[in-house]
Amino acid sequence: MDGLLIVMSGFSGAGKGTLMKRLMADYDDFAFSVSMTTRAPRQGEVDGKDYFFVTKEEFEKAIEEDGFVEYAQYVGNYYGTPKAYVFEQLKKGKNVILDIEVQGAMQIKEKFPDALMLFVIPPSIEVLLKRLRARGTESEEVIMRRITQAKTECTYMDRYEYIVINDDLDTAVKEMYAMVQSAKFTVSRRREFIDTVIDELKSI
Amino acid sequence: MDGLLIVMSGFSGAGKGTLMKRLMADYDDFAFSVSMTTRAPRQGEVDGKDYFFVTKEEFEKAIEEDGFVEYAQYVGNYYGTPKAYVFEQLKKGKNVILDIEVQGAMQIKEKFPDALMLFVIPPSIEVLLKRLRARGTESEEVIMRRITQAKTECTYMDRYEYIVINDDLDTAVKEMYAMVQSAKFTVSRRREFIDTVIDELKSI
Repeated sequence: MDGLLIVMSGFSGAGKGTLMKRLMADYDDFAFSVSMTTRAPRQGEVDGKDYFFVTKEEFEKAIEEDGFVEYAQYVGNYYGTPKAYVFEQLKKGKNVILDIEVQGAMQIKEKFPDALMLFVIPPSIEVLLKRLRARGTESEEVIMRRITQAKTECTYMDRYEYIVINDDLDTAVKEMYAMVQSAKFTVSRRREFIDTVIDELKSI
Repeated sequence: MDGLLIVMSGFSGAGKGTLMKRLMADYDDFAFSVSMTTRAPRQGEVDGKDYFFVTKEEFEKAIEEDGFVEYAQYVGNYYGTPKAYVFEQLKKGKNVILDIEVQGAMQIKEKFPDALMLFVIPPSIEVLLKRLRARGTESEEVIMRRITQAKTECTYMDRYEYIVINDDLDTAVKEMYAMVQSAKFTVSRRREFIDTVIDELKSI
């Protein structure tokens, strides 16, 4: 069976990165998505592992050829998720998780209706604030900007399929895994199978 | 956390009864629903275990008091799923599975929008026919009536949430369990939690 394309969004500080790493570590049916970028490799970065490093011309050619699941421009450089790589992993039965903010997530859902939409939230906003402050790297102003952003993100929550509450990490990872497994059994994702059964019934 | 009300429908011969028994045997967070009936107890049947045996008057009083999740009349007797019993189990955190045909299932979904709707089908109609014929208890005419019924049931499949393909029993039981677990994490079933978070965000 093909893997699932998984879109993970959620509040900044909800622990998306950690969840993703743990899923990859605990289960072998997940694959990282390697992004493509036009920015120069940093010290120690490996082509094809950290990023696919390409020229601006190569990237724009890929855009023209509809080669991205999604892409964006940021500080003068392109960043994108190459379709070919993602599809190759899905075909191998690997689930591919993309960490994407809400607007980008909506675009993906439109293009790939079978994508599994997960939204990660902390057990409470109080906990979120504690986590953000505990980082000690961000000013109160930046933290408040993240809260404002979270308010906007809330309005998109209804467009997601499952809510991951990241309270205890182990529990959240197990729950997320169950969501991914079950998502494959929804009526919309078993459409092809259902249609085969209906055809078989009609032929009797 | 409250248990889930689970509605299980599916083709006759798909193995709903066996699946239900195995779920109860393998996991302790499920409860049988004991039906109420006006028919006389048969030899060996225990009140409160096999059925709640009541008089016609008692049953009709319960109908008036909106005491049933669903009920129906069959060969002159009433059969129904008492709300009080089901809700008591749900409150205890037990998931309650009801084996209900498609029309009844739709009524339950309307009354209890959070009910989890599962539809069980065999891996193919060829397998279904083999299973029905292997029983050796049904005439070809009865089997064909079941096929006709399955054709009608197909038209309701889109109203269900997950499709259980009952090929290998162990796999189907595990998949069903994952569905029940994950169903609790859907956006619609985490509504209350989401609303709390939104309120908390607004207060900042």
